[in-house]
Amino acid sequence: MNKIEHIGIAVKNLQEASDIYESMLGTSCYKIETVDSEGVNTAFFRAGENKIELLEATHADSPIAKFLEKRGEGIHHIAFEVDDILQEMSRLRSEGFVLLNEQPKLGADNKLVCFVHPKATKGVLVELCQEIKNR
Amino acid sequence: MNKIEHIGIAVKNLQEASDIYESMLGTSCYKIETVDSEGVNTAFFRAGENKIELLEATHADSPIAKFLEKRGEGIHHIAFEVDDILQEMSRLRSEGFVLLNEQPKLGADNKLVCFVHPKATKGVLVELCQEIKNR
Repeated sequence: MNKIEHIGIAVKNLQEASDIYESMLGTSCYKIETVDSEGVNTAFFRAGENKIELLEATHADSPIAKFLEKRGEGIHHIAFEVDDILQEMSRLRSEGFVLLNEQPKLGADNKLVCFVHPKATKGVLVELCQEIKNR
Repeated sequence: MNKIEHIGIAVKNLQEASDIYESMLGTSCYKIETVDSEGVNTAFFRAGENKIELLEATHADSPIAKFLEKRGEGIHHIAFEVDDILQEMSRLRSEGFVLLNEQPKLGADNKLVCFVHPKATKGVLVELCQEIKNR
């Protein structure tokens, strides 16, 4: 795990939350992106070499909609940057962690991602992410 | 905000959680510290230039005990590193954020800290922290 790549925060209204985070972090949103496969609109902010990702559900079956219903707004996941996601997935499996996807999938912000089951990590939803290198 | 300094994770049993995080992060705990004023035992792990702080309550009135009772184990706060905590507190107050302590207080890991009320930050408990320079 190289560093915390980003923290994902579930919010009800992306525009309203973006205004607040711009003000708190003292920096503008640098990217807004929809990830259809996850049912989310995302807004990204830089905090030094880390990022904050605000997440808004695009439909009622989105994992973010379910999280908001159950827990309310707040931190949804921590993402760690890895160099080789397949190798890291294999290492975690061998350590007994349960992965939520068998293969890396395409996430926001040009990343391959995999989630680790929060039951094994003390209630924390952990994401591994590896940047996709443009050729 | 220079970077994410650490993520604080509330756990019931520090030793058990430390074993799991050592295994997940692939690195050993580098510091265990009790912060009497906050009623917590803490264990720190490095993830690149960021840190993970596991937090265990030392008594039933600890904020961590109350968090665990209400929410269960999971992410408790995000801490951002700042160069000048007084200046950053003043900036946030002027932006309309409510601070949970009027003056910086002594936190774990040789830091001056201040918390921002989560009602204004979409349910996220934000900590500002400034390293105390040893003279």
